[in-house]
Amino acid sequence: MSTVKKAKKKINAAILIIGNEILSGRTQDLNVSFISNWLNTNCGISVLEVRIIPDVEKKIISNVLDLSKNFKYVFTTGGIGPTHDDITALSISKAFKVKYNFNKEAYGILENYYGNKNFNDARKKMAKMPSGSKLIYNPSSAAPGFMIKNVLCLPGVPSILKSMMFNLKKFLVKGLFVNSRSVSLRTVESRIANYLTKLQKKYSKRIDIGSYPFFRLGKVGVSVVFRSTDTKLIKSCENEFLSIIKKNKIKIHSFIK
Amino acid sequence: MSTVKKAKKKINAAILIIGNEILSGRTQDLNVSFISNWLNTNCGISVLEVRIIPDVEKKIISNVLDLSKNFKYVFTTGGIGPTHDDITALSISKAFKVKYNFNKEAYGILENYYGNKNFNDARKKMAKMPSGSKLIYNPSSAAPGFMIKNVLCLPGVPSILKSMMFNLKKFLVKGLFVNSRSVSLRTVESRIANYLTKLQKKYSKRIDIGSYPFFRLGKVGVSVVFRSTDTKLIKSCENEFLSIIKKNKIKIHSFIK
Repeated sequence: MSTVKKAKKKINAAILIIGNEILSGRTQDLNVSFISNWLNTNCGISVLEVRIIPDVEKKIISNVLDLSKNFKYVFTTGGIGPTHDDITALSISKAFKVKYNFNKEAYGILENYYGNKNFNDARKKMAKMPSGSKLIYNPSSAAPGFMIKNVLCLPGVPSILKSMMFNLKKFLVKGLFVNSRSVSLRTVESRIANYLTKLQKKYSKRIDIGSYPFFRLGKVGVSVVFRSTDTKLIKSCENEFLSIIKKNKIKIHSFIK
Repeated sequence: MSTVKKAKKKINAAILIIGNEILSGRTQDLNVSFISNWLNTNCGISVLEVRIIPDVEKKIISNVLDLSKNFKYVFTTGGIGPTHDDITALSISKAFKVKYNFNKEAYGILENYYGNKNFNDARKKMAKMPSGSKLIYNPSSAAPGFMIKNVLCLPGVPSILKSMMFNLKKFLVKGLFVNSRSVSLRTVESRIANYLTKLQKKYSKRIDIGSYPFFRLGKVGVSVVFRSTDTKLIKSCENEFLSIIKKNKIKIHSFIK
């Protein structure tokens, strides 16, 4: 099916980052913020949990099973390349108790990409995945990701991952979009905390108000973020906040939609 | 106690990032790689799991209990500021079933920092923490972090967190240091995968060999990383690898200790 399905409710997801290099601090993860932003903006899907785990089969199995039970979608990154430490596809096959074998279409894509002569065992490995997987095409480097049950497996290299996101859109049910408005102030959190507490109480669970201090160019400030699926409510909450700010003579630094 | 205790075994830790802003993709996390690198370099402690969760009491409680049971240390970041969405200290008090009240020393530090006149309720809140906590001093913005049982709570703002790391060193038992050597090659993973598989099999669990493709200035390459607590073993494994590379006429790009 190539059209995006729609839902009138909130849809959640989890991200599972698989890779010793992220855990050891050697590599800075960039995929969490990208995937989370992309899902929210393009599909109305909110990421509610992220886990980073090592390239260890037992850990991959237990975390995939746990997250796939508790979230609508699970996005994994990493561990689907050609080397010995790429064990995501095998581990997920074991997690779901399905066979780990060559996907015919993936095999064809890779054979065509590398040419018959250079299609060695390591490259062939990238066509092995859980039986019954759907392919997520890879316009950068051919080796496809895959979806099995509610788990979507992507590579760890950010530029390749980014190029594949469009190709997984068709597998996702759209949820209610979460909108946000952000006001940055030239003040400190502890000066506005009291007002924010009152506002959050008034709007209760209908709006999520966040407060984030920042330091830019040697100046301190606070970004206040209003998030909700209801745009009108965000606007009225923001207006109420702005009138408090005005009354207390706190300087506004910028607005971001 | 002000001296760092030593252990002759591996010591592990988990990081729990608490904050809607990281999950939504609004803010790029920078604390995982910093904390993980710092712990490894300064204390011989390896981070083996990271979780990112929202500012939700139930989630904080269940994750703190789960991680503190399974790891030697748990480092939390975020949620210890003055605003309504800062609920880490209260949630952890509930997790460990201890009182959430003013820490006398923290109260004194903050009162002194803000001056009696400006010491409002929001600022006072930052002195409230789980009963029995030890303070982690904050040379940047006064409000201390705290340690309760094996859980160490730090702020989310990276520059403040960084300034506090030195002050928590005294609470940690040192473990065996994991050393690493990295060789970057001008090739693709699938050309060297076979050699790496054989090497990893030979050295088994004594060395962790990782393979990470990179794209820099339009050129592709692979970084091969050897990690172990045994420096001599790393050297011999690396030498074996380099002789394979030489024999196969693969170009070396750089070495990193």
